[in-house]
Amino acid sequence: MEEKIEKFKKMIKEKKMIDSMLALLQWDLETQAPKGGYKLISEMIGELSLKSYNLTTSEEFSELLCELKEKEEKIDGILRKEIEILEEEMEKIKVIPSDEYRAYSELTAKAQGIWEVAREKNDFNSFAPILEEIFNYNKKFIEYRGSNSDVYSIILNDYEKGMNIEKLDKFFEKLKSEIVPLLKEVTEKEKKSKENLNFKVDEYNQKMLSEELLKYIGFDLNRGILSESAHPFTLTVNKDDVRLTTRYFENIPFSSVFSTIHEGGHGIYEQGIGDELKETMLADGTSMGIHESQSRFYENIIGRSKEFWFGFLEKSKFKYKELEEISLEKLYRDINEVSPSLIRVEADELTYSLHIMVRYEIEKGIFSGEYSVMDLPKIWNEKMEKYLGIRPDNDSEGVLQDVHWSCGLIGYFPSYALGNVYSVQILNAMKKEMNIQGVLERGELNKIKEWLNEKIHKYGKLKTPKEIMVEITGEEMNPDYYIKYLQEKYRSIYK
Amino acid sequence: MEEKIEKFKKMIKEKKMIDSMLALLQWDLETQAPKGGYKLISEMIGELSLKSYNLTTSEEFSELLCELKEKEEKIDGILRKEIEILEEEMEKIKVIPSDEYRAYSELTAKAQGIWEVAREKNDFNSFAPILEEIFNYNKKFIEYRGSNSDVYSIILNDYEKGMNIEKLDKFFEKLKSEIVPLLKEVTEKEKKSKENLNFKVDEYNQKMLSEELLKYIGFDLNRGILSESAHPFTLTVNKDDVRLTTRYFENIPFSSVFSTIHEGGHGIYEQGIGDELKETMLADGTSMGIHESQSRFYENIIGRSKEFWFGFLEKSKFKYKELEEISLEKLYRDINEVSPSLIRVEADELTYSLHIMVRYEIEKGIFSGEYSVMDLPKIWNEKMEKYLGIRPDNDSEGVLQDVHWSCGLIGYFPSYALGNVYSVQILNAMKKEMNIQGVLERGELNKIKEWLNEKIHKYGKLKTPKEIMVEITGEEMNPDYYIKYLQEKYRSIYK
Repeated sequence: MEEKIEKFKKMIKEKKMIDSMLALLQWDLETQAPKGGYKLISEMIGELSLKSYNLTTSEEFSELLCELKEKEEKIDGILRKEIEILEEEMEKIKVIPSDEYRAYSELTAKAQGIWEVAREKNDFNSFAPILEEIFNYNKKFIEYRGSNSDVYSIILNDYEKGMNIEKLDKFFEKLKSEIVPLLKEVTEKEKKSKENLNFKVDEYNQKMLSEELLKYIGFDLNRGILSESAHPFTLTVNKDDVRLTTRYFENIPFSSVFSTIHEGGHGIYEQGIGDELKETMLADGTSMGIHESQSRFYENIIGRSKEFWFGFLEKSKFKYKELEEISLEKLYRDINEVSPSLIRVEADELTYSLHIMVRYEIEKGIFSGEYSVMDLPKIWNEKMEKYLGIRPDNDSEGVLQDVHWSCGLIGYFPSYALGNVYSVQILNAMKKEMNIQGVLERGELNKIKEWLNEKIHKYGKLKTPKEIMVEITGEEMNPDYYIKYLQEKYRSIYK
Repeated sequence: MEEKIEKFKKMIKEKKMIDSMLALLQWDLETQAPKGGYKLISEMIGELSLKSYNLTTSEEFSELLCELKEKEEKIDGILRKEIEILEEEMEKIKVIPSDEYRAYSELTAKAQGIWEVAREKNDFNSFAPILEEIFNYNKKFIEYRGSNSDVYSIILNDYEKGMNIEKLDKFFEKLKSEIVPLLKEVTEKEKKSKENLNFKVDEYNQKMLSEELLKYIGFDLNRGILSESAHPFTLTVNKDDVRLTTRYFENIPFSSVFSTIHEGGHGIYEQGIGDELKETMLADGTSMGIHESQSRFYENIIGRSKEFWFGFLEKSKFKYKELEEISLEKLYRDINEVSPSLIRVEADELTYSLHIMVRYEIEKGIFSGEYSVMDLPKIWNEKMEKYLGIRPDNDSEGVLQDVHWSCGLIGYFPSYALGNVYSVQILNAMKKEMNIQGVLERGELNKIKEWLNEKIHKYGKLKTPKEIMVEITGEEMNPDYYIKYLQEKYRSIYK
């Protein structure tokens, strides 16, 4: 038995090393590789993905898992959970022919470069065939699994266990029925503009502030880096090497601020995974919904609070000099200005979920066959007009704005909305144990990080999202708190 | 036969892909990985090096080479040369036990991080044990080959075919006997300082200029990138992805200028390798001596000429504004100021070779057993005093200044001196076919690049250094031209 466990650990080590190499190649491709390098690096990604596939689906590995499972009583909880997760992964991928698995990995690696250029040049047509291929592969891979459920429901369940179209339809219906009137109420009160915050800050100084913010919220820059990319993201090599990106617009200095804090939230989660999980399959966030709860918690609940900025402006070594001329009250109002806008990652909390709805409905429509990829620009713009009352002038600010689909992250977007909902439930639980306002005003961000480390991060994948939520808050996901939070916050700002 | 060639090509493709992945990991480690990431990335490098080792030394591969060689008349020159190079590589590494090969790869990956910290903290002792280990491995690996020659001579020959201690002793003796008096003559004429050039330029603007310079000399930024590292270097993923680094000191803006042009020279070489060699083992510079001839050619012969700066200041879109206030004559004098200094990469052309001598003598002394690693700081400082008349205050500016030994690049330094010598021979040949001054003044740097592409770059490893030099210049390496070049150039500046 000892021997088998050793063998298992060795195989996991190998698998994790391949996955870490894949992460580094992905990182390279998205943050710095020259155009000439895309081809070879995509090939490498294809090659390594195949290696990972072969390892995970090998007879040897599968037998080993069976043998270990037979003597489950002799193995610890971590190992049991690893086996469970690996079996799920095997089930999903072993039905895919290896050449298709490899081709898809290579395709999504290449697609990001193509998306980036298409977005730059506002040229949806150059991206559409690839996007169609990606959707088709996703559909095919799910169909290989031979389930009776709807394809999109299975995809949603892969991201967040228990999710399906029915539940999400209800969820978004509820959000819509509450948020759309609230949005109307608020925007009728007052027309504001963020002009105060749109001073010019050069890239270098934005970078300085971003790094200062990361340190301030507790992201460890000895075990991570901040870089740049067309679309901000977080990537984990392992818990001691967590990589974030942001992006700098000279005339919108708060864009990088909130992107950085958002990714910082993801990064703090990854850095906080328990040391005992480091060499295991559990060294990762438990679901994308919980992951987004951490990023959105830091970005919105912390990062858009008055107390956070009070503390930061008092304590930080570096800040934009322009901020010294703005009162805290004004800053708070401005960073919470509600105004329908085109770009999701720049959206305020109230309109944000509507952006997610647009994407959710489009994904659903593609899989049901209602929509075709070629029509997406039109569909996108119509939905934006319907839900947000504004229409993009071009696809770069419309259907081409997000990197996700090019990476094959289809079904991911609802995680953001779930994350928002979770984040408020987490906030309420935290409030019972901590004077959050005081902590923020005194700049004791470590206390918040430690609380999250202890209740969420350290468990990695050892606990399910549901287990975590029930343990912390006493109940499962419940959007009521989120809606209440939005109502209270924005009615108090827009009196 | 066709089948065997196909199989060979497939194996080469695999080998090259592993090597490219290694290059990317190396790049990551040296340019951006957080401290927490060193361990895992070093392990990956060890793992992949072992894979490369196993492939290269496999029975299967070796048999394939034999079979192909038996029918040499049926294969083309490229394939023949590939086989020759692979056989040499196999001979060198197959005698090394695989665990030692892997351990050494991991060690040199780790060592760079340790060197970087040691240099930052001016703490030779923290680096010394690793350095000793690296020297010992190098010695052991050579001894495994069971040759009767002196260990250091074999190492020198590995870098530049035909080199050995005897030849290099003579070579340096000659340089010393001519350069030391010339240095004395020149520095007695006039005491100058580079004050004019040491204005302050922030990192961002230095970066802008570096990129402008690279484009200007013909480095293709669609097929390469410029980044930063503790010590500038060039790394090739493949000819369409060539990566350079430089470093920025706010108060020494010309440090990045010449580092960038130097690495640009390496990069232009790699980007210029013939397309037909891309998938082969020949897609690389033919030797480090010839490689350094290209970097030193661009850095010194081009980059420190009056005509280059005339053209650049006329044509470039971006330049340091301070340069507008300096006359061309003054700029030329300042960038060619002769003054013994501590840092090799900042050294003027006259003192440069003396820096190399210090390193050459130290390496020789370590292998002969005359010197011990622990004594290197003392030995370094004594030699600096002896040859250059100055003594470092600390090891960061002394024995710790170069990255090379930490990477296992022992025996590399003489390549720089050979590169200088080659570069002047190449200059003389180019002069016969081109009005270089006119070309530079008109900013037609592409003509120079194309000449070098045609005569040197495109051949990759298809021709030996000797073949290249004889074809271009009619003779082998000959230091006389270099000495004459230095005498003429510096006697005309220091009249």
